[in-house]
Amino acid sequence: MPQGQVPTTPDDGRTTRQRRHSPLVVVHHGAGKGKSTAAFGLALRGWNQGWSTAVFQFVKSAKWRIGEEQALTTLGRVHEQTGEGGPVEWHKMGSGWSWSRKAGTEEDHARDAREGWAEIQRRLAAEQHQMYVLDEFSYVLKWGWVDVAEVVETLQQRPGYQHVVITGRDPHPDLLAIADVATEMTKVAHPFDKGQKGQKGIEW
Amino acid sequence: MPQGQVPTTPDDGRTTRQRRHSPLVVVHHGAGKGKSTAAFGLALRGWNQGWSTAVFQFVKSAKWRIGEEQALTTLGRVHEQTGEGGPVEWHKMGSGWSWSRKAGTEEDHARDAREGWAEIQRRLAAEQHQMYVLDEFSYVLKWGWVDVAEVVETLQQRPGYQHVVITGRDPHPDLLAIADVATEMTKVAHPFDKGQKGQKGIEW
Repeated sequence: MPQGQVPTTPDDGRTTRQRRHSPLVVVHHGAGKGKSTAAFGLALRGWNQGWSTAVFQFVKSAKWRIGEEQALTTLGRVHEQTGEGGPVEWHKMGSGWSWSRKAGTEEDHARDAREGWAEIQRRLAAEQHQMYVLDEFSYVLKWGWVDVAEVVETLQQRPGYQHVVITGRDPHPDLLAIADVATEMTKVAHPFDKGQKGQKGIEW
Repeated sequence: MPQGQVPTTPDDGRTTRQRRHSPLVVVHHGAGKGKSTAAFGLALRGWNQGWSTAVFQFVKSAKWRIGEEQALTTLGRVHEQTGEGGPVEWHKMGSGWSWSRKAGTEEDHARDAREGWAEIQRRLAAEQHQMYVLDEFSYVLKWGWVDVAEVVETLQQRPGYQHVVITGRDPHPDLLAIADVATEMTKVAHPFDKGQKGQKGIEW
């Protein structure tokens, strides 16, 4: 692995240590595979640091990321039982969010998405987690369900030490502009092109 | 998540079911972040399928991927204790490989890399695992430590149902040519550019 060389030392009045421990906004976008899997890979690192991690899945799908959910919530259970690692919460926007008494409807994804975002705002204000994974959240902005200016303001003004990882294609430029780390996953080869459908263990 | 639409149905004499359960060669490359994290995210899915997973880290580094190693080997331990998920092995090329009696030297990375590859060949022939993660293996080819034609032949002729995920920059074109899934991670924004060094939980 090439060692990270710091090309510039900014004149921002902060020490290297302060910069080292900056909470990050991370965006994984692009048409290639690996956007969400890389986010969950980051969650493994957070778990090992003892961080509290919360995953929010924003787009309803027949293919929930069951493999990652099982594995990460198992790690959360290990934390509860042995104290190793950190706690893990996994919330999905299926039929309403798990914390909500309201049953979601298949028809009102926009309302459910707004409710999910409002909960994330509350948790950020309360500094509830150290790592948030907002899976497929770019679509929520793209489809206008949540206002991008509000998201940008909330992320920029979040208190304390809270990393936020956002995945999905076509992220709004205003979101990309505030990302500390943005990676575009570009499709070079994909079995769909050969007429092969997704398979267990690889796609979910 | 957009549903995967199969653009073409190939005339290769195989059924859709056969194509669905094809073992894949997956390559994550590019200068952006997420190559290895996405590979370990895939390992979460494999674990949940009950697959045997083995990770081989090929490049010595002060920054081993400790977070992922701890998390994935913890999942392997859960499997041993409860039967959930699958077994996980994690091997790194530090001072010789863990299965070897020979102590590696700091000087002979090429020899250690060849020994690691020979072990992977033995395991592929024995169908020992369902998922192999060859982390940073592209450099082993780039630096000529292992012959790319031999790697291509071994991968193409591997028996049974064994997925192989390879990470690292600048993969050899012959390797890319046989990849079923290849994703290039492109750097769009990175905190190193702002003079920020790597931090725990994010970089390792």
